[in-house]
Amino acid sequence: MIFVNGIRYVLGESRPISSVPELGGDEAAIKFLADRGFKNYRHSTVEAWELGVEAARQAMQAAEVNVADIDQVIYASVSSRSPAHGDLSIGLFAHRMEMLTTPITGVCFGECTNAMLGIEHAAMLLETGRARTVLLVSTDVACSKEQRVTTGQTICSDGAAACVITREPRGSAVPSFELLGFAKAFHHLSRAGMSNPAKSFRDICGAAMKCKKTVLSKIDKPLAKWIPNTANSEVAGALASVLGIPASMFYLDNLPEYAHVFSTDQLINLVDWATRSKAPSGSVVAGLATGTSGSSVAAWRVV
Amino acid sequence: MIFVNGIRYVLGESRPISSVPELGGDEAAIKFLADRGFKNYRHSTVEAWELGVEAARQAMQAAEVNVADIDQVIYASVSSRSPAHGDLSIGLFAHRMEMLTTPITGVCFGECTNAMLGIEHAAMLLETGRARTVLLVSTDVACSKEQRVTTGQTICSDGAAACVITREPRGSAVPSFELLGFAKAFHHLSRAGMSNPAKSFRDICGAAMKCKKTVLSKIDKPLAKWIPNTANSEVAGALASVLGIPASMFYLDNLPEYAHVFSTDQLINLVDWATRSKAPSGSVVAGLATGTSGSSVAAWRVV
Repeated sequence: MIFVNGIRYVLGESRPISSVPELGGDEAAIKFLADRGFKNYRHSTVEAWELGVEAARQAMQAAEVNVADIDQVIYASVSSRSPAHGDLSIGLFAHRMEMLTTPITGVCFGECTNAMLGIEHAAMLLETGRARTVLLVSTDVACSKEQRVTTGQTICSDGAAACVITREPRGSAVPSFELLGFAKAFHHLSRAGMSNPAKSFRDICGAAMKCKKTVLSKIDKPLAKWIPNTANSEVAGALASVLGIPASMFYLDNLPEYAHVFSTDQLINLVDWATRSKAPSGSVVAGLATGTSGSSVAAWRVV
Repeated sequence: MIFVNGIRYVLGESRPISSVPELGGDEAAIKFLADRGFKNYRHSTVEAWELGVEAARQAMQAAEVNVADIDQVIYASVSSRSPAHGDLSIGLFAHRMEMLTTPITGVCFGECTNAMLGIEHAAMLLETGRARTVLLVSTDVACSKEQRVTTGQTICSDGAAACVITREPRGSAVPSFELLGFAKAFHHLSRAGMSNPAKSFRDICGAAMKCKKTVLSKIDKPLAKWIPNTANSEVAGALASVLGIPASMFYLDNLPEYAHVFSTDQLINLVDWATRSKAPSGSVVAGLATGTSGSSVAAWRVV
């Protein structure tokens, strides 16, 4: 059994979407996004690794673990500027965390599914006995216009979430979640730059549907909620419709205030849903992450 | 049991190190490197993913598997320019390979240990039943002066290697290798930009020693050879000395012609050693990869 414990997150400063520098005051674009649920977004004045440090410290406290307990860190991020020759930000993170010799695996090629792919990697480390206590840090800060305003349909926010992944539940400050099932599916044409918006949407839906089927076949209890990445309400509605999920089952409560926090959304929305809804122990919920090149679904049981 | 099969590689064009553009004809630097074993290096006129496609095709042929057999690809590379928003090169690789829906995991934060970290990821996929046949592609093309002439001590070459990782040996065109043991150890100060050459070398040695001890404790047969990444003969000699390994046990035969092919070295040198030495079945050899932020050791048995 795999448990995610002590999910904590930190976000950049709250600012109105009309102030997104990359929108350049384009009234039509701002209205388009406001009509689809965006109101404020989060803008970090510090680097992704610094947000990651803060989230990691809070998560370790919530899960009641120390630096010495952590066998392995998984650092999921879209914000690397230089993976090529020793990623600086992971080094700075390790230094500030006093984890200079702790193994750190980077996950950076899954776009908005990075955190989910990190969970799969953590599960494998635990299942094979390579680690007992894994710290997952998901931290994302937009590094370009393309990242801040994805395809014109989404405003992306800066934030980090962290959690501690173990084989037993840990801590009582926030709910723990048991991983009941996981699936991933890919569609590489978009990231090859060879697709178009309609084809990309179909590919995302196809991959998400495949994951949904795989994971739901292992679950014998009705889902309390679907936890997607926070998205444009129109796009989220279309995705829910294609997947045969009532729109009311999608947790989009963070859309007006947080916008879309890349792959970090998954952890933020999961813990917010459980905390705000006071989800009873035993509730089952499914996370659904969709990225440029693939989708992932995880089924979670509230401990 | 985990087996690496059908290792094949392709390299860029052979050119004398005096023509490395990043050295700018600096006679003293060229002599310094020539005195430490460098003669020619490999310069690719195509992108890393294209080298990866060629190596992958050859490896799949050698291991006698088809595209439909591959459950998962691991793409290890230092050469990504844009991990941030859907890595283009992985998309182009997938398209050319006709693997548009095959899961692809990227490994890009381990510098010259990327291929080794890819092997560990593959082992976990196989051990947990998540995959039966994994294609590992390690492809590295210098994208900057910093990558081509690392710290002034090494000339880096462009090349790709691929192999098929399974639970049973496959193919007969090239030797298969059974993974007998694996260890990794980290030292993040260098990639935080907070170290110096002497401290970095000590950290690399410390991590390598830790890995060596862990892996050798599981091996009851004398090693036929150590397979390091190809490096400056002086640095390699110093590393061997600190580790208590006779310099003659280090396989550095590819140094004058190939120079250092980043993490791809591990697969190149392993198969070259076995093929050229006609290593008998049952021989045990240890791979030793050292990078900016960590080291890995793998023990291999020739099938």
